Amino acid sequence: MFCPVIELAQQLIRCPSLSPNDAGCQALLIARLEAIGFHIEPMHFGDTQNFWATRGQGQTLAFAGHTDVVPVGDERQWINPPFEPAIRDGLLFGRGAADMKGSLAAMVVAAERFVEQHPHHTGRLAFLITSDEEASGINGTVKVVEQLMARQERVEYCLVGEPSSTERVGDVVKNGRRGSITANLTVHGVQGHVAYPHLADNPVHRALPALTELAATEWDQGNEFFPPTSMQIANIQAGTGSNNVIPGDLFVQFNFRFSTELTDQQIREAVANLLDRHQLRYTLEWNLSGQPFLTAKGALVEAVVDAVQHYNEIKPELLTNGGTSDGRFIARMGTQVVELGPVNATIHKINECVSAADLQTLSRMYQRIMQLLLT
Amino acid sequence: MFCPVIELAQQLIRCPSLSPNDAGCQALLIARLEAIGFHIEPMHFGDTQNFWATRGQGQTLAFAGHTDVVPVGDERQWINPPFEPAIRDGLLFGRGAADMKGSLAAMVVAAERFVEQHPHHTGRLAFLITSDEEASGINGTVKVVEQLMARQERVEYCLVGEPSSTERVGDVVKNGRRGSITANLTVHGVQGHVAYPHLADNPVHRALPALTELAATEWDQGNEFFPPTSMQIANIQAGTGSNNVIPGDLFVQFNFRFSTELTDQQIREAVANLLDRHQLRYTLEWNLSGQPFLTAKGALVEAVVDAVQHYNEIKPELLTNGGTSDGRFIARMGTQVVELGPVNATIHKINECVSAADLQTLSRMYQRIMQLLLT
Ligand SMILES: [Zn+2]
Ligand SMILES: [Zn+2]
Repeated sequence: MFCPVIELAQQLIRCPSLSPNDAGCQALLIARLEAIGFHIEPMHFGDTQNFWATRGQGQTLAFAGHTDVVPVGDERQWINPPFEPAIRDGLLFGRGAADMKGSLAAMVVAAERFVEQHPHHTGRLAFLITSDEEASGINGTVKVVEQLMARQERVEYCLVGEPSSTERVGDVVKNGRRGSITANLTVHGVQGHVAYPHLADNPVHRALPALTELAATEWDQGNEFFPPTSMQIANIQAGTGSNNVIPGDLFVQFNFRFSTELTDQQIREAVANLLDRHQLRYTLEWNLSGQPFLTAKGALVEAVVDAVQHYNEIKPELLTNGGTSDGRFIARMGTQVVELGPVNATIHKINECVSAADLQTLSRMYQRIMQLLLT
Repeated sequence: MFCPVIELAQQLIRCPSLSPNDAGCQALLIARLEAIGFHIEPMHFGDTQNFWATRGQGQTLAFAGHTDVVPVGDERQWINPPFEPAIRDGLLFGRGAADMKGSLAAMVVAAERFVEQHPHHTGRLAFLITSDEEASGINGTVKVVEQLMARQERVEYCLVGEPSSTERVGDVVKNGRRGSITANLTVHGVQGHVAYPHLADNPVHRALPALTELAATEWDQGNEFFPPTSMQIANIQAGTGSNNVIPGDLFVQFNFRFSTELTDQQIREAVANLLDRHQLRYTLEWNLSGQPFLTAKGALVEAVVDAVQHYNEIKPELLTNGGTSDGRFIARMGTQVVELGPVNATIHKINECVSAADLQTLSRMYQRIMQLLLT
């Protein structure tokens, strides 16, 4: 059985595109899109390859994705070499099979079938593809979005191909993501000898009640679309390594995944108030990785739900949990953003794989979304 | 003005005896002691030089000290090279001037003067000298004491020359030291991604209430001779360095300096109870560096108080605070142990120095203690 989706997915997996290396993936995609009338605009920034491809004019539905993959880990543990795709028991194995070369193949084949049926579709069909989503991402989607915004391009709808599903393709669709902000906190004390604690000021002892309160705080209760905001201490460090020195400083790094019930500004203020109430001497630096975004309803959500129901007879759950994705950058344009992709059980793991039948179904879902929004 | 105490102290400072290197100090001391009839017994263990010197028979007064010094730090900050002794404004500068080459010189000159006046003194005058008190000390005084105990030697009195004084020589005498025990605690959790906290178990969050209680605990109130037991967290560490990984383990190292109101066993039990009450999964290892010891009264304390009052017209305070010293090993022999040495304001610091006049007075005090106990 020849399936163009599986064929293209295999071609992409054969390119060892470790972030931010594209390794030839985009050339494959561009050749296919140019053949069906897309205008291609490469947008390379630094070490990262990106392109923006469009066909038609007007109201825009963009498909977004990345060609890069995460490292393979211990290659000897793979049942199959990670960049040599193989199908076993209906599963396509290979690094990137699920995240997200399978989605890329499904999108491009969907576009080919859609254009063949509707060569004069309404609106504009677009692709926003980057070679760095998995690593720093600083020269990827965020830069392309800035460029598009600088020239007033409008993108009404964006379908991101990230693997959103948990058991069956389409059982979960992401219609938003939590925000992410990291605090780098240094609590200052006075270094000294453990035998003379009155001459020192142990920053760990001082900070403990404040950190206990921080960890016990309920930040919000979430809402219809978002789980409650969560705070996690990711790193903590104090001490010289000697057992007789009272440390001078305590470093604590903690990260918030926050819902649309809170703004990053409210989080910054709440943390500062808490530390001030505990009368700590501290330095606090914040690093905002992404604002939360939400596509609560609208034509894109409706089209996605329709497509999933049409092909899989299940009503997808609309969730906002999990890590961040490039959707957060695209949402800045005022775009409705939804993520729909294959089952994510094996992503970033040894023996990453995806159901071949799921990829075929996914491609049909993508094609139906194009039909619903562009005809 | 020629003073044999200052002269010998300068000779010792010229030897760069960084622990456990003796750098020739003991040869200088041995030559002087042999010249006045001491029997010398070298006791070298591993990288450490020690000697045991005795003169006479019977009830024993030992002087104990170390020839090694701590590192000099940034040598450019010294007003004078640290191993080139210099006297400025009545202060003798050099690494080890106060801790404790000045004391060693004062002891040896005191012995010389005492032996000249009392060549047939009663009892036994002894010296226990090591080249590693400041570093690990594992091959120093502890090994010499074990050797002496193995052959049933008795030492009734021991005067340790550690710098005990705070403003004037003899204003503080140490007649005991707190115990020291260190806990290495690992709190176990489950590593995970900060975006999925329900799949992980953050050991930092779990441990914070327990550590807060630990730091707030009053362990005892001390007693007539000991300040309250104190606990200090010296090191704390968790995290991979990444801001999106929930750590799997938290490591905390804390040290107790404990009074004779508590035993190390009571401390171990109290900590385990506290951790159990907080239902932590943990691994806990203990390292006992020294039991507390106390020489509450007796002939040695009386002789030391008399000598200080005689030369400085002040009644010394008997204290047990501060770090540990080799006195804890000698006390195991059932010995009365007292520490009397110069002002400790500059020890272990840049520009370590000691009052030359104080060293001369200290030598006279040591001589008087010999007279009171051995004639
Ligand atoms: Zn991905
Ligand atoms: Zn010392």
